Amino acid sequence: MNVALISIGDEILIGQIVNRNAAWIAETVTAIGCHVVEHCVVADDSQQLMNTIDRLRITSDVLLLTGGLGPTHDDVTKTVLVEYFQDVLVESSDWMKHLTWMSQRGREVTERNAAQALTPSTATLLSNPIGTAPGLLFNRDGIIIVAMPGVPNEMKSIMESHVVPLLHSKLVVQGNATTQYYTMLTTGIAESNLADLIGDPMMFLSGSTLAFLPNYTGVRLRIGVTGLTQEQRDKERMRVASVLRERAGRFIYGHDDQTLSGVVGHHLAERGQSVSVAESCTGGLLGAACTDAPGSSVWFHGGVITYSNDSKVRELGVHQSDIDRCGAVSEEVARRMALGVQEKFGTTYGIGITGVAGPDGGTVDKPVGTVWISVAGPAEQTTLKYHFGADRRINRERSVGAALGMLWKIVR
Amino acid sequence: MNVALISIGDEILIGQIVNRNAAWIAETVTAIGCHVVEHCVVADDSQQLMNTIDRLRITSDVLLLTGGLGPTHDDVTKTVLVEYFQDVLVESSDWMKHLTWMSQRGREVTERNAAQALTPSTATLLSNPIGTAPGLLFNRDGIIIVAMPGVPNEMKSIMESHVVPLLHSKLVVQGNATTQYYTMLTTGIAESNLADLIGDPMMFLSGSTLAFLPNYTGVRLRIGVTGLTQEQRDKERMRVASVLRERAGRFIYGHDDQTLSGVVGHHLAERGQSVSVAESCTGGLLGAACTDAPGSSVWFHGGVITYSNDSKVRELGVHQSDIDRCGAVSEEVARRMALGVQEKFGTTYGIGITGVAGPDGGTVDKPVGTVWISVAGPAEQTTLKYHFGADRRINRERSVGAALGMLWKIVR
Repeated sequence: MNVALISIGDEILIGQIVNRNAAWIAETVTAIGCHVVEHCVVADDSQQLMNTIDRLRITSDVLLLTGGLGPTHDDVTKTVLVEYFQDVLVESSDWMKHLTWMSQRGREVTERNAAQALTPSTATLLSNPIGTAPGLLFNRDGIIIVAMPGVPNEMKSIMESHVVPLLHSKLVVQGNATTQYYTMLTTGIAESNLADLIGDPMMFLSGSTLAFLPNYTGVRLRIGVTGLTQEQRDKERMRVASVLRERAGRFIYGHDDQTLSGVVGHHLAERGQSVSVAESCTGGLLGAACTDAPGSSVWFHGGVITYSNDSKVRELGVHQSDIDRCGAVSEEVARRMALGVQEKFGTTYGIGITGVAGPDGGTVDKPVGTVWISVAGPAEQTTLKYHFGADRRINRERSVGAALGMLWKIVR
Repeated sequence: MNVALISIGDEILIGQIVNRNAAWIAETVTAIGCHVVEHCVVADDSQQLMNTIDRLRITSDVLLLTGGLGPTHDDVTKTVLVEYFQDVLVESSDWMKHLTWMSQRGREVTERNAAQALTPSTATLLSNPIGTAPGLLFNRDGIIIVAMPGVPNEMKSIMESHVVPLLHSKLVVQGNATTQYYTMLTTGIAESNLADLIGDPMMFLSGSTLAFLPNYTGVRLRIGVTGLTQEQRDKERMRVASVLRERAGRFIYGHDDQTLSGVVGHHLAERGQSVSVAESCTGGLLGAACTDAPGSSVWFHGGVITYSNDSKVRELGVHQSDIDRCGAVSEEVARRMALGVQEKFGTTYGIGITGVAGPDGGTVDKPVGTVWISVAGPAEQTTLKYHFGADRRINRERSVGAALGMLWKIVR
């Protein structure tokens, strides 16, 4: 079942917002066995939207539209679909009740919002408990078109309650060969070294695909397997995975949508261990990564953001003399930060990060991108120096990835 | 000058990575006056890429491609462009020198990487000091096609050094009417209330456009003005902006790519004031937002991530009796956290956040999404309760936005 995504909105087109919706939808429908053929971002422009629907219906069985259903004048999706299907707008009494119910929670049914109850007569309305616009489902003329609001949690609610179950039931009926993806996650090795380690994929892939996808925490290995039955796909997937594990296993920390912090946390929780963090250049990002997953309070106890030198000395017992002699970005300061936070929070492990994130603050000896990371454990302490690049944001992200990678090596 | 973006890669298509590159490129070329007509994400598939180039060259003057230039077998872009322009691959001695130079920094010129020096004979190579693949520029048959690596900092380096200057020089020569965008940023008001406050945009827009773009920190108002000269555009922009400021000025904190934390920091720095943060459910995200901008050490001194109740009592002087009586998510605990961190770091302001981010931990009295935020200042303290939604990630992001919004109201 071929699916194409159409994201509507000048704000995406001109880059004012990042198209996270498309990634979420693509991931969600791929997971149930749909084949995503294209994402397309178009303007708040009726003609362009019409042309795009016309073009993509040729290669696709399902078009998933997001955006342009809001209450303001620049929203065109509903109008275009009414025209496309030569439909008319009628007032939905059910939706008017929903709008009134929402108003009883403290919002008023303004005239602007009441217009949301006017919906195309041949569309099925998809409930949206947290918003004022319903999803619109057209299942006509051999194509399924679903229009959803661009607000991420409204779109997700409609996808999960309506669209995923619908597509899933169609897939079960069809029984076509589908492609499924499985990802193995690595840390601590560069893309080309990993490729050399694994060798020519053509020698062990038979009809499957393998892709190398680098990001800040490491390189992901994505296996795509195609087959008629789940059994066929599982067998091939396990065969390829075992080759990869044999050749690069020591760098593989997890699979699919696992996160490095989640995997580290799982290992810590299993052993009844805990961690705390002392952050300088990352300013809270490592703590944020640790607490990203629900349930992290079991193994993550807290941390200190010591952005100033004063606070490093006062809160973490870093010696002023070390800062004076070696600078705040130094092995000794990272070591002391890790030990200081470990003691303060009474955790099994303490992590200290201090670095020059940039763009300013670099010197000949310590250029922008120099980061010291230390992990203090119950018995031993590991402290490493990294050289990242010139980009402040990337240096901060890579520092978080490196710190978690160091802890993973210890606790796996 | 019409520009279309083509992002190549199954990893984007299936939603494994978010297409941040497209947003960055779109924003960058829009800022110099280009008109972005479409973003398209396609598979690592030669035929689909070929078809997409064929289609988009009709509506576009420039095609910007990212991805598919890497050293592994799933990279198809170079091959497709060679076929599209009926070109041949030749070895570039300059690029081989670059690969050797990179190897002297500790990397080896593996056979895999050496293949990156084979480039199309009619393409101009665009230098990429931080990667192994050069950008490829074709300026033939009435169309400009640029292929860049998908690695974000390599793409950005090529855009900034080569593509932006080229497009800018073409635009100056053309002298066509261009559209420029200007954004006013609001916080503390919902989209439909803001729309009502501003009234029907058709009454004061003459040829300009206005869009409402909500995100976690607030609603952005994007004005699009079209004109032949910069003077015309500036005049119209200032006219529309002054109407918006008159009607909704008290919610407007900044413009364009300013951030709420950056604006707050600017106000604090101007007054010689400072802030520190005590975070529970946000786990470091507020500190990360504060330190996102370079130079934040002037006004941001640090913080404490007190994820456990123990650490709230020990580090911030929260009373155990308050936690026992009111729970960790309560007005009194948020107040104490703010006061505790303010005192600990000796800053002008202290912010405390405690909430139920979800998905677990909600109760009838304190459902998931309940967050208390307190801002302690030199004289007074403001503490507010928020009800966000069911999504953990969004609750954390909105908490950060709300906390910064509260501080902004005080320091603006």
